[in-house]
Amino acid sequence: MQVAPPPSRLLDHVLSSHQFGRSLLEAVFARARSLGGVRDRRLSGRIMATLFYEPSTRTRLSFESAMLRLGGAVIGTEAAREFSSVIKGETLEDTIRMVSAYADVIVLRHDQAGAAARAAAVSDVPVINAGDGPGEHPTQALLDLFTIENELGRIEGVDVVFCGDLRYGRTARSLVLLLSQFPGVRMSFVAPDVVQIGADIRALLDERGVPYRLNDSLHAVVPEADVIYQTRIQKERFGDPAEFARARGDTRIGAELMAMLPARSIVMHPLPRVDEIDPGVDDDPRAAYFRQARNGVVVRMALLEMLLA
Amino acid sequence: MQVAPPPSRLLDHVLSSHQFGRSLLEAVFARARSLGGVRDRRLSGRIMATLFYEPSTRTRLSFESAMLRLGGAVIGTEAAREFSSVIKGETLEDTIRMVSAYADVIVLRHDQAGAAARAAAVSDVPVINAGDGPGEHPTQALLDLFTIENELGRIEGVDVVFCGDLRYGRTARSLVLLLSQFPGVRMSFVAPDVVQIGADIRALLDERGVPYRLNDSLHAVVPEADVIYQTRIQKERFGDPAEFARARGDTRIGAELMAMLPARSIVMHPLPRVDEIDPGVDDDPRAAYFRQARNGVVVRMALLEMLLA
Amino acid sequence: MQVAPPPSRLLDHVLSSHQFGRSLLEAVFARARSLGGVRDRRLSGRIMATLFYEPSTRTRLSFESAMLRLGGAVIGTEAAREFSSVIKGETLEDTIRMVSAYADVIVLRHDQAGAAARAAAVSDVPVINAGDGPGEHPTQALLDLFTIENELGRIEGVDVVFCGDLRYGRTARSLVLLLSQFPGVRMSFVAPDVVQIGADIRALLDERGVPYRLNDSLHAVVPEADVIYQTRIQKERFGDPAEFARARGDTRIGAELMAMLPARSIVMHPLPRVDEIDPGVDDDPRAAYFRQARNGVVVRMALLEMLLA
Repeated sequence: MQVAPPPSRLLDHVLSSHQFGRSLLEAVFARARSLGGVRDRRLSGRIMATLFYEPSTRTRLSFESAMLRLGGAVIGTEAAREFSSVIKGETLEDTIRMVSAYADVIVLRHDQAGAAARAAAVSDVPVINAGDGPGEHPTQALLDLFTIENELGRIEGVDVVFCGDLRYGRTARSLVLLLSQFPGVRMSFVAPDVVQIGADIRALLDERGVPYRLNDSLHAVVPEADVIYQTRIQKERFGDPAEFARARGDTRIGAELMAMLPARSIVMHPLPRVDEIDPGVDDDPRAAYFRQARNGVVVRMALLEMLLA
Repeated sequence: MQVAPPPSRLLDHVLSSHQFGRSLLEAVFARARSLGGVRDRRLSGRIMATLFYEPSTRTRLSFESAMLRLGGAVIGTEAAREFSSVIKGETLEDTIRMVSAYADVIVLRHDQAGAAARAAAVSDVPVINAGDGPGEHPTQALLDLFTIENELGRIEGVDVVFCGDLRYGRTARSLVLLLSQFPGVRMSFVAPDVVQIGADIRALLDERGVPYRLNDSLHAVVPEADVIYQTRIQKERFGDPAEFARARGDTRIGAELMAMLPARSIVMHPLPRVDEIDPGVDDDPRAAYFRQARNGVVVRMALLEMLLA
Repeated sequence: MQVAPPPSRLLDHVLSSHQFGRSLLEAVFARARSLGGVRDRRLSGRIMATLFYEPSTRTRLSFESAMLRLGGAVIGTEAAREFSSVIKGETLEDTIRMVSAYADVIVLRHDQAGAAARAAAVSDVPVINAGDGPGEHPTQALLDLFTIENELGRIEGVDVVFCGDLRYGRTARSLVLLLSQFPGVRMSFVAPDVVQIGADIRALLDERGVPYRLNDSLHAVVPEADVIYQTRIQKERFGDPAEFARARGDTRIGAELMAMLPARSIVMHPLPRVDEIDPGVDDDPRAAYFRQARNGVVVRMALLEMLLA
């Protein structure tokens, strides 16, 4: 009698958007679609640890909801920085070794780029990067891309307008990278110079032959957009408060811009928003940002299932 | 073949004691009685979010225990005020929209009156008010009333002495309102002027024809009381510390007062207590306050089941 | 027909290492061994409360993992000191009475010696001491002793070298007491005077006829050791920083000491470590400290099962 080898896992850890080529993206999205509304016990007995060195309630609750809907359980901390052991001088590596003795998967949020890779190097269990400082936030990029596909029925050939803080905002950068794999995609980057998309990303788009435009006004690009991806600009990025006020004013989305946006296009935002989208837009069917938040749960369910199955 | 319509839910949200007329109260209490000792999985797969903008460990743990005994799961935060998104300027409404994407019911504690109603207006899932500042705390009022019925076998005709901070104490005010629906109930309000029951409540009792007395000494009213409802007085309510000390001294419950209380009467307290009930009273069978805390679990189980079934 | 009486429980509470004689230790360890890898639902419907008045993430997550692996559920708080009720002046006893209305077992961490016994005196449900200040931390002592048995195959006759802070370190003191019950055990205490093992412990070893040596160098004792039990020394114990630096230097475990340690011996540490064990030692198969952390889960599973079954 022969024993079949265990099926090789598609994923060992989720550390970076760069792990996700088109076929893996499609596998994750197909799984996520099939998990809408699922509440079962397929991960019964499995434990997820949420280890958040900086607070991110939205991301934490979304992961916890995903794990619980699959019948798994959750241990964790809202404030890993105040871990008694961290205060006593424990390294991240030792903390991860400890937590990997207690849990079957670790969701790590950290303020230093590369923390997730350091964790994966010593962990006995899969590590999911839930944001590592200025580094990556791959599950956000996945849920963003999943939302585009879900809302528009396609990713190829879409015209996406990125707006807000494109230099420091992790989410826009990661989504640009994922989108650049799909043929026919066009992008516009609307931001004041101080927070405009980085030269590294532009070089990569040039290399891949992806067409893009830089702009400082939404009006010019919105009429052709399939997606406006709005993000929050932090005041602290600007030396001059007046310049911040002007930049925010120029890129705020309200009734006037919505009137210029095609009927089947959508507005996305990683949330939380402050005032860069007028609450009056919320009831417009093209306002996709709350549906986008909801998609975070099924995408994370798919990833947890793939890591733990 | 005809598909039966879903039975209309008795409750969409739990926001205020004013929602609870006698028939609904009786339905909740009957359900609560039947849930004593229950540990099953009837809410398996359902998720409750506890969203506490101010700490209230007692209320939070009581809700969590209720949900878990029915097989449900819990996500949440001990400190919603430190939500990354709240710090970044997110509105309560946006936070609720987010959380309602992750959970099937939201238990909200907030420091502003009306917060629960604002939450319910935008939530896709039921909202339970677990205290909104100087506003309401309806589940506490329900468990208090349930305790009276459970301990005395009746609510009609009971004589209830309220004592302590009756002006700012949310719990006494809400219980007065619920009790005023039952025929024959008499009430006494024992408190120094600065924290005596408000004119609004007295006007309502007058309007409903409910007899009540104002008093500043417990001695006069205890011999006829079925229930003493004691509450904590906060020092900060008094300008003069000496006046606070005098007020507290006059209304402290100890051996002397217990000797005057009828044999089948009870002492209640929403807890935590400081020194307004002497610990020596704890072993007296008439000390109902720990049983009252225990009743919080079954009452909340009944509400969760009614909201989610 | 006769109804069999319920089997008497071996344990009502877990408060002190002194409760654990050899036969009870053997029962716990046998159970712990059988629970390795178990994930089932034998404690389904049961609720554990973690009540931590001082942070100890390692201990908390280990208990939570143990309860969840048995199908139980967890309520709790990372910061009991900030309990609204504690801030309002509630006594530990009243808090315990409240929590015992919500949970089936309470895991208590407190900063005052004797807190666990005070809690057990008023609790309706079992209390587990998860460390009470300078007092006891019995579950740590149990998992340490279990690790020795598991790694070496025996406890009788082992030679154990304790190193680091032996005066204030709760874990070393408790393990010494448990070990002293086993015939043939020899111990060495390697520490500078200011943190050397207390006279009370030495008197007890003398009384029991357990041989031990005091030393201030590891080199003399390591070649004969079966176990090195290393602990962290807190700088604050030393008046003179230079003396601290010297003490730490003398007792650090690195390649040189490992070369002197017999091939089948082990290095233990209750963790977190700072620099008293060189990370270069981690890959040595004799480095047992991460396996020791892992053993905490099965030992706590065994205790929870014995308390709740």
